[in-house]
Amino acid sequence: MTQRLSGTLAEAGEFGLVAALTSRFPQAADVLLGPGDDAAVVRAPGDQVVASLDMLVQGRHFRLDWSSAADIGHKAAAANLSDINAMGGRPTSLLVGLAAPPELETSWALEFADGLAEEASSVGASVVGGDLTRADTIVVGITALGVCEHGVVRRSGARPGDVVALAGRQGWAHAGFAVLGRGFRSPRIVVDAHRRPSPPYAAGPEAARLGATAMIDVSDGLLQDVGHVAAASGVAMDIESSSFDVPEPLQAVGAALGVDPLRFVLTGGDDYSLVATFPPDVALPQAWRPIGRVLGGGDAGTVTVDGAAYDDPVGHQHFR
Amino acid sequence: MTQRLSGTLAEAGEFGLVAALTSRFPQAADVLLGPGDDAAVVRAPGDQVVASLDMLVQGRHFRLDWSSAADIGHKAAAANLSDINAMGGRPTSLLVGLAAPPELETSWALEFADGLAEEASSVGASVVGGDLTRADTIVVGITALGVCEHGVVRRSGARPGDVVALAGRQGWAHAGFAVLGRGFRSPRIVVDAHRRPSPPYAAGPEAARLGATAMIDVSDGLLQDVGHVAAASGVAMDIESSSFDVPEPLQAVGAALGVDPLRFVLTGGDDYSLVATFPPDVALPQAWRPIGRVLGGGDAGTVTVDGAAYDDPVGHQHFR
Repeated sequence: MTQRLSGTLAEAGEFGLVAALTSRFPQAADVLLGPGDDAAVVRAPGDQVVASLDMLVQGRHFRLDWSSAADIGHKAAAANLSDINAMGGRPTSLLVGLAAPPELETSWALEFADGLAEEASSVGASVVGGDLTRADTIVVGITALGVCEHGVVRRSGARPGDVVALAGRQGWAHAGFAVLGRGFRSPRIVVDAHRRPSPPYAAGPEAARLGATAMIDVSDGLLQDVGHVAAASGVAMDIESSSFDVPEPLQAVGAALGVDPLRFVLTGGDDYSLVATFPPDVALPQAWRPIGRVLGGGDAGTVTVDGAAYDDPVGHQHFR
Repeated sequence: MTQRLSGTLAEAGEFGLVAALTSRFPQAADVLLGPGDDAAVVRAPGDQVVASLDMLVQGRHFRLDWSSAADIGHKAAAANLSDINAMGGRPTSLLVGLAAPPELETSWALEFADGLAEEASSVGASVVGGDLTRADTIVVGITALGVCEHGVVRRSGARPGDVVALAGRQGWAHAGFAVLGRGFRSPRIVVDAHRRPSPPYAAGPEAARLGATAMIDVSDGLLQDVGHVAAASGVAMDIESSSFDVPEPLQAVGAALGVDPLRFVLTGGDDYSLVATFPPDVALPQAWRPIGRVLGGGDAGTVTVDGAAYDDPVGHQHFR
């Protein structure tokens, strides 16, 4: 039974709101103890748990005028579940902290919770707990837990000769962000990609099963995140621009904004696509598209495009 | 090797600061993969993990003029580790998200990290990962993971006839908060209790081993948190005021501020003491002081003091 509440968070009060929120979170089989106690208890098969924490700040990671509360819930969950995916893991649960102004409408918090729960449920995970407190702007703290049934894939295992491959959409969310930034709301398909990313959740565990040597999810920008893998692995990598079919909506946005649409693909984040490296003899299934290779020489940590430096700004760095 | 940085977060940049922060976090044996990848991997003996998330907001949960960065790190860790303690668990790890203004001094972030790491180390836990981002004020999101080697103690198992018992200091942090709120800095011992709580970390697993039927940590206020146990268990409880030796520093603060010092004990939070219920035949070790009993009658969820309602405001509710 879903509880109903109206008015602001201040009018609902902490305990009423927590009860209303937790009633919206279905609990799957991995949950041994869900919301309502001092901590949750979750299954961790194989005696180990994979865990990640993200912070999302209003005005920085999301805007209330660009995205609905449900969109923001979906995206917050997706960004964090994607970290488990990038380890080759299957997410089991989320813990979610919401710091929010007392004048926020309760309906916003409940729709945010629905978005979280829907995204989690789409991968069989559950929202098992969290925290609610007051702040001047909305800040979300979110932790995903998961299990790596096919082994843990780190960033540091890429070897010269490996194939670099991509799973999932790449550049769509950045094109949507660019459109919204100019005050437009279309093409709707890229705006929606910014609002609700579609991480390739099945591809992470599949890569682990196939023997991927390294993996990362693209949250800040493809070249930047590939660079993290190259640096952690002590190798150089080259990306082939011809390996990308730049999709029509990105071409349309590029034409409208006077931007090379390949730039969305190479430097965009927030699609939560995966980049992994595989030994050259691995037969890649359809979800994984080869986009480059790990070089035998070159400076460790460098990433080139078609053999040369790509001199556009590459992705996002906080605080600068 | 600990990296050194100076200036503001904006000057250090995200990646430099993350490297400097993670170099300060020693990794204990439960950590299979520490900071630096998309997620951490932590041992979870018994195929299950206990997990909790807290949000702490500048100006609400801590003040930069009342507490040092190291104090705030200690307290953030303690508040969250205490949730694992309250389940009867042993904490293994923390994930910590820091949202902070770019003009914050890097030294603040590093000292905050040192405080976190010290508090975690004091219970054998490690800071295994986190997130760093920009916000207008400091918001900390923190997740503790742990293992319940003696079983999980929930809030809901208290039975009529059980003894209610307390472990740890209670009322000290609230007295310190009251003193600071009036602009004083002494007695130092209560101010320090507010700044750096000392949760009774050994007492949680001990209670689980002894067969505690229910447990909670006192974060909002003793009577309020006991009320949560009573409500979850469907019982009433009575607390005996004579069971508390109100310590001298609390008496001094009470006298100075014109407040009954028992009020600090009964309604104060933030010491992260534990309240548990035990079957009446359990021989309680010294760490656990009997303070009341679970009643056979009475309205479920009600908590009385010496058989009567305690009509002071009981603890803290957010958003009101």
